[in-house]
Amino acid sequence: MFRNFKTVKRIVFGRGCFNQLDDILAAQRTAECPDMVFVVDDVFKKGKPLQERLPLHDEDLLLWVNVDDEPKTKYVDQLTAEVRKAMTERRRHLPAGVIGIGGGSTMDLAKAISLMLTNPGSSADYQGWDLIQVPAVYHAAVPTLSGTGAEVSRTTVLTGPEKKLGINSDHTVFDQMVLDPELIADAPREQRFYTGMDCYIHCVESLTGTYLNAFSQAYGEKSLALCQEVFLQADTPDSDDKLMMASYFGGMSIAYSQVGVAHAMSYGLAFVLGVHHGIGNSIVFDYLDEFYPQGVAEFRRMLERQGIDLPRGVTAASSDAQIDTMVNVALMLHPLWENALGKDWQQIMTREKLRDLYRRM
Amino acid sequence: MFRNFKTVKRIVFGRGCFNQLDDILAAQRTAECPDMVFVVDDVFKKGKPLQERLPLHDEDLLLWVNVDDEPKTKYVDQLTAEVRKAMTERRRHLPAGVIGIGGGSTMDLAKAISLMLTNPGSSADYQGWDLIQVPAVYHAAVPTLSGTGAEVSRTTVLTGPEKKLGINSDHTVFDQMVLDPELIADAPREQRFYTGMDCYIHCVESLTGTYLNAFSQAYGEKSLALCQEVFLQADTPDSDDKLMMASYFGGMSIAYSQVGVAHAMSYGLAFVLGVHHGIGNSIVFDYLDEFYPQGVAEFRRMLERQGIDLPRGVTAASSDAQIDTMVNVALMLHPLWENALGKDWQQIMTREKLRDLYRRM
Repeated sequence: MFRNFKTVKRIVFGRGCFNQLDDILAAQRTAECPDMVFVVDDVFKKGKPLQERLPLHDEDLLLWVNVDDEPKTKYVDQLTAEVRKAMTERRRHLPAGVIGIGGGSTMDLAKAISLMLTNPGSSADYQGWDLIQVPAVYHAAVPTLSGTGAEVSRTTVLTGPEKKLGINSDHTVFDQMVLDPELIADAPREQRFYTGMDCYIHCVESLTGTYLNAFSQAYGEKSLALCQEVFLQADTPDSDDKLMMASYFGGMSIAYSQVGVAHAMSYGLAFVLGVHHGIGNSIVFDYLDEFYPQGVAEFRRMLERQGIDLPRGVTAASSDAQIDTMVNVALMLHPLWENALGKDWQQIMTREKLRDLYRRM
Repeated sequence: MFRNFKTVKRIVFGRGCFNQLDDILAAQRTAECPDMVFVVDDVFKKGKPLQERLPLHDEDLLLWVNVDDEPKTKYVDQLTAEVRKAMTERRRHLPAGVIGIGGGSTMDLAKAISLMLTNPGSSADYQGWDLIQVPAVYHAAVPTLSGTGAEVSRTTVLTGPEKKLGINSDHTVFDQMVLDPELIADAPREQRFYTGMDCYIHCVESLTGTYLNAFSQAYGEKSLALCQEVFLQADTPDSDDKLMMASYFGGMSIAYSQVGVAHAMSYGLAFVLGVHHGIGNSIVFDYLDEFYPQGVAEFRRMLERQGIDLPRGVTAASSDAQIDTMVNVALMLHPLWENALGKDWQQIMTREKLRDLYRRM
């Protein structure tokens, strides 16, 4: 059985295409549901020109969201309630759509809100696979950071009371992507790097994995090559365009592939220490020579060329119990280990070995 | 303004995924419209195992189609009438869907029938851009040849009483692609080559063109690299998988690019002499060193490696009037020439020069 995967229905790509957003959304506004909800990373609140360019209509709702921490189910529920309240005030049943403008976390919040507006209960009830019953309201992605692939994925990764797990569903997939390379030009240098490395590491893991087929390979190889151009060669006027394409291709390559050791271990770091996904992957990857010798060597050249100082000693203050929790969280992700190390992965990646790796970080 | 392009909603890729077709279609059959129409290239009629694998239900309609000639609007109208008649006999308003199984011409017929079942008049009325008003019935592509990119394009190229021109519309785009590399394994060697060259030449034209952006470049470069692997390197067990991906990527790259000299001239050959699109591109391309020196040199290495004898002297018997018609047809395609040669293309590609090129073929 091969996955019959759902794609993002409409894509627009080009420098300045953000200016077309108003026209694109016009087609979604109806007499019954005329109002849009813009879910925007609050870094754009202060002195950023993006705010003035938002195509807000009179009754549209602008929701500034904070993603200093990774998205939590509680936060999603609170934001969804805010939207419901605003719609009630406007005597509307639902908004015409939810537009996520920001990086992976903001896009995940937009996806989750669009789903929770039509599905009852808490977003924590839907963490898992294909638990969503009712289609979401129309939702569109406008990435301002590139690398996570959140613009094309069928998940929205949330930290709930019990687990960090995505709402994986065909209904999660965006209806529209607006890919404007000009929007990622102002990302802070380190954040741009770590988000890009999320993509690079993902490609290394999937291309060396056991799950790969020609579809995911074609997307993954090109994504990797674009990351190499962006992070190992001199900047060109279209470096941002290439990084944006790398992210999109990396996301598409996941259709028939899986990530591996770095992502599994990064989940452990995130769960216990709250380390963000992008930087967590980089911290872990630097200790994985044994599994990805070529990839790690190239990653170090990228670090050097981009002048990035990787955080060290992040687990130095962690207790044995904390390290054990990291090990538990990481080892739960069976498909990632099987993809990386094959069917007999449990004989290769023992608890002791994993503990030792975490201790070194 | 950048095109906000529509994608194929669902994609399944993998060896043997044709076996999932019945399950995929089940979701589209309704109580009101339960019947599928299978539009299948009649080369599969004789002694081909594909016929037995078609997931036909009791009341489904199997339409064998002949594509010895490229699709004509008259043929589309006749096939559409057949489907209407069959539906009336079954006391149904419309079929649940139209499934095209074959190469580019068969997929184009399936697209055109799905459009004409819901739009009044003749298919010739809709040759052009965005003339279709009513969405088509559900339609799915199952390619058995790879290279044309018809599985992802927003056109169905038809020869009408007055012109050879596609029905270009968002409604033309398939709802589903079933990409099973096993299905292209039995294609005749020459046909496989020429169809693959349609993709290769298209990539050379778009990558060297003036219209390119990073989106189309990423898809085009990977498509070209896959063609190079398939036609210049030793066969591997996944050569067919790669060719299938090359075709899909080539089709996607057209979103923000355009073809060039070879395609323009090939239209002239097709209109006057009925030369098929795939082989027509190859015939023309071999005389275009001046415009695509690297691409033509590599194309000749592919010809040699694959042991293909290109037809020669195809215009030897053509009258001056016929050559003039070829020139007229080719020169009408302004965007192709502008993409290839820039704004001043008319000073570069004179009628005399084009006439001379046609005469040499």
